[in-house]
Amino acid sequence: MAEKLHPKIDHGLPKESASFSGGTLVCLCTSKPVKVKIKGQIAHNHACGCTKCWKPDGAIFSVVAVTPHENVTVTENGDKLKVVDPSALILRHACTQCGVHMYGPVERDHAFKGLDFIHPERFEEDGWSPPGFAAFVSSVIESGVDPGRMAGIRAQLKAAGLEPYDCLNPVLMDVLATFAAKKSGALPA
Amino acid sequence: MAEKLHPKIDHGLPKESASFSGGTLVCLCTSKPVKVKIKGQIAHNHACGCTKCWKPDGAIFSVVAVTPHENVTVTENGDKLKVVDPSALILRHACTQCGVHMYGPVERDHAFKGLDFIHPERFEEDGWSPPGFAAFVSSVIESGVDPGRMAGIRAQLKAAGLEPYDCLNPVLMDVLATFAAKKSGALPA
Repeated sequence: MAEKLHPKIDHGLPKESASFSGGTLVCLCTSKPVKVKIKGQIAHNHACGCTKCWKPDGAIFSVVAVTPHENVTVTENGDKLKVVDPSALILRHACTQCGVHMYGPVERDHAFKGLDFIHPERFEEDGWSPPGFAAFVSSVIESGVDPGRMAGIRAQLKAAGLEPYDCLNPVLMDVLATFAAKKSGALPA
Repeated sequence: MAEKLHPKIDHGLPKESASFSGGTLVCLCTSKPVKVKIKGQIAHNHACGCTKCWKPDGAIFSVVAVTPHENVTVTENGDKLKVVDPSALILRHACTQCGVHMYGPVERDHAFKGLDFIHPERFEEDGWSPPGFAAFVSSVIESGVDPGRMAGIRAQLKAAGLEPYDCLNPVLMDVLATFAAKKSGALPA
């Protein structure tokens, strides 16, 4: 039986539009939804298996991307937002009513500082850049997925065009290591 | 130019022998070398790019495998051994004279508890199981490798038959996640 990875993955990846210039993320509330305006196209969109990212009901993976913090503006009902875990690297701002994570800035000294993590499936508009890989795949076990399902899950991700990684992809892992190397002095700053 | 990954990788992987039943690890000291007897074949042998594993001179990667702790016996000059970092998960016992890590037990509550990490290139005998993948590849940047060399390094690992991962391989990452899931209660213990 096919696994329910994520609604935006299981029926073919969404199509990117060259004319997409941003849009509005909306939470799941039917009354007074939180709205967050995002300027420009998103980057590094990917499926994520970690236990912290917000996932729609029944999905094994989240779909999450980044955008520079200055491109993010809360436009409606921001009073419903609260940071899920103030000690986490990503300060996930969730709607306290429906639970959707609307944006998650990285403010700490880190390679990803200045970027906000968002869930593009909450865009009212189409045309955002589709996920390009799957990160933290083994971590879905920590959400209760039986290890015996992992071979099928990895195969299904690959078939969907998403190379599975148990951390981030090589591009981003190299970015993290380069940041660490510059900080330690192993590479010139 | 080809990268110097490791002497046991750059000239073709060593050949496993079905009759290998263990051997003796010897450090680099010409006088009073530390000797450690290992019973049986090693497991999960791999190239490792992390900054903590011992590497021979000029190598970008270490080659490291595991064996159950009960298969490890220090037979000569054990007084020269000292734990490199008592706070690390792997208690790397290094020769204080030549620096070679002779064995590294995991004693903490962890998926790898009861296993010792060893460097099979220090076996006096041939026939040990060759490396099967490359772990923590992006981490070599933290040792000062220019990020611009990473595409070449990953291609060279693949060509040598070692699939590159920026963490451990999927089998071991699933083992780690399963351990975490059983501990948290996400999976039955």
